[in-house]
Amino acid sequence: MSLAKAYAAAAATAPLAPFQLERRTPGPHDVQIEIAYCGICHSDIHQVRNEWGNSTYPMVPGHEIVGKVTAVGAQVKGFKVGDLAGVGCLVDSCRTCPSCQRQLEQFCEKGAAFSYNGTEMDRKTVTQGGYSSSIVTDEAFVLKISPKLDLAATAPLLCAGITTYSPLRHWKTKQGDRVGVVGLGGLGHMAVKLAAAMGAEVTMLSTSKSKEADARRLGAQNFGLTSDPATFKKLAGHFDLIIDTISAPHDYNQYLGLLRVEGAMVLLGVPPEPTPVSAFPLIMGRRTLSGSLIGGIRETQEMLDFCAQHGIVSDIELIPVQQVNEAYERMMKNDVRYRFVLDMKTL
Amino acid sequence: MSLAKAYAAAAATAPLAPFQLERRTPGPHDVQIEIAYCGICHSDIHQVRNEWGNSTYPMVPGHEIVGKVTAVGAQVKGFKVGDLAGVGCLVDSCRTCPSCQRQLEQFCEKGAAFSYNGTEMDRKTVTQGGYSSSIVTDEAFVLKISPKLDLAATAPLLCAGITTYSPLRHWKTKQGDRVGVVGLGGLGHMAVKLAAAMGAEVTMLSTSKSKEADARRLGAQNFGLTSDPATFKKLAGHFDLIIDTISAPHDYNQYLGLLRVEGAMVLLGVPPEPTPVSAFPLIMGRRTLSGSLIGGIRETQEMLDFCAQHGIVSDIELIPVQQVNEAYERMMKNDVRYRFVLDMKTL
Repeated sequence: MSLAKAYAAAAATAPLAPFQLERRTPGPHDVQIEIAYCGICHSDIHQVRNEWGNSTYPMVPGHEIVGKVTAVGAQVKGFKVGDLAGVGCLVDSCRTCPSCQRQLEQFCEKGAAFSYNGTEMDRKTVTQGGYSSSIVTDEAFVLKISPKLDLAATAPLLCAGITTYSPLRHWKTKQGDRVGVVGLGGLGHMAVKLAAAMGAEVTMLSTSKSKEADARRLGAQNFGLTSDPATFKKLAGHFDLIIDTISAPHDYNQYLGLLRVEGAMVLLGVPPEPTPVSAFPLIMGRRTLSGSLIGGIRETQEMLDFCAQHGIVSDIELIPVQQVNEAYERMMKNDVRYRFVLDMKTL
Repeated sequence: MSLAKAYAAAAATAPLAPFQLERRTPGPHDVQIEIAYCGICHSDIHQVRNEWGNSTYPMVPGHEIVGKVTAVGAQVKGFKVGDLAGVGCLVDSCRTCPSCQRQLEQFCEKGAAFSYNGTEMDRKTVTQGGYSSSIVTDEAFVLKISPKLDLAATAPLLCAGITTYSPLRHWKTKQGDRVGVVGLGGLGHMAVKLAAAMGAEVTMLSTSKSKEADARRLGAQNFGLTSDPATFKKLAGHFDLIIDTISAPHDYNQYLGLLRVEGAMVLLGVPPEPTPVSAFPLIMGRRTLSGSLIGGIRETQEMLDFCAQHGIVSDIELIPVQQVNEAYERMMKNDVRYRFVLDMKTL
């Protein structure tokens, strides 16, 4: 065992505060990582505040983890001391169910081991996340990070990156496809960058005209103002794929009408209440409404390699860990462009 | 021109009554068919009664048309006098848009020419359907009918058959797939027969225990009583594909929970109001909610050939045309097993 410094929530109503935790001694398949940076995902706030009702405390959040390998187990083949490495939302899964065999560990039928606010596959050992100085993770769930990319800005790829990359790949986005991205936040800004890098013609769909300049800078060729009903007439039948990153209530049917025949709309956010869906736009054009959850480990590595090849990272604000509670408050007001990353050497 | 006998609605509130209409002289690409049988589709009632708000009168309904070829134009290659032939929901389309080029004429971007309550592609000539003694249709929209099948019971394949066959094929139903069929009516009974013939393990999902014996006779191996909440626990994550034939309000989310990872639920019916959909079951398993509308002409022929090969027809009640109004009343009470077919020689 080794001790790690961390920031933890002691309860749903407590601010994050300094904490100390034990990390296991690396087993034969484990990689020990000294964490350099950890991104802040909106789901960190949901879980710290027990908004999903499944939180356990003390909780060390964080699943956008990058750093340097400091030790490896005897059987580890893919990593050596000094390598850059990353850990995302998953730290283990059953590895034998149909989903795991298809390398969709996020849908493990036994329930994957999530990086924090969960347990290892023994269903006893509590997992603790990346707002800490180190982590020990089975090699099978550790990602290789290219030294070509800015390391701090790479951290959010481990969640925001794969969450948007996976649906773009699953729905086979290619040169010239028309992709709509709904909402320009942590997820939306990655969706724009990744879709543009895949050669898609990207349209940012936003309620706020003030997002247009930034959307274009990130790679969007078009902008549709969704507070204007004319946008939904003008772009009717336009898109091959719509990536919907919004968690606030909004009218899916309007967006379904923007899809071409057999187009797909993919939900990444969960609005607080079910959203009324009309069968009509689905039937008239064999359109689909679907959802997507992060991605499997193989695809996460593919995404990181794609980002290294295309020079893609997240737009971030790097902050000392002591500002994490303030960062949460700003995120609640959507006041971040586009991801906070904690500098763990400030711990 | 030739005169045809028919049954028509003079207004939304009028019963169907004898009528006479003109059919065009066959052009070089036309096939003239003496109609032997015409199935009654629930959408006939919707349109006769102007429940979709787009009805024009007088209206001769009917788009499940089978009969014998009585004349062909000089350029017609695929049909000769005396052949059996069928006409379904479509009688023409633009033939050049992306959907038509992909042989999805039902999604023609110019708007396909529907068999009745519509217009030809000139957007002037009114189309009249199969509750009549004859029809003249462009060869490209005429289907070949096998003499191996009972002709009267073949008629409903032209709508109920293709409407259920198309999603089964599009979602690649194969040997051993688990297919759920929601609702046992005109569409549901065809979905059960077709899915079973494709080798799927079919489960009938119905609110009514009384449907079980018939569902099993039609080919379902399992029955799930949807009025019992335990059914939704027992079958959670079970299905590759759910074909939902219900137009009455019902909870989609319950059924989405029955899909395996990446499973699809396909809507064939349009409930009167939009249905609340939770993003959660879509995101947790990359499940899809979609819809499907009849099928293209090539696929309709493929379906008819498949049915001939597997000896599949609709379960019908053959009635004289004079009983059509009574049949409508019985259909409103779901009192038909499973499709009324009009015997046109009674005209």
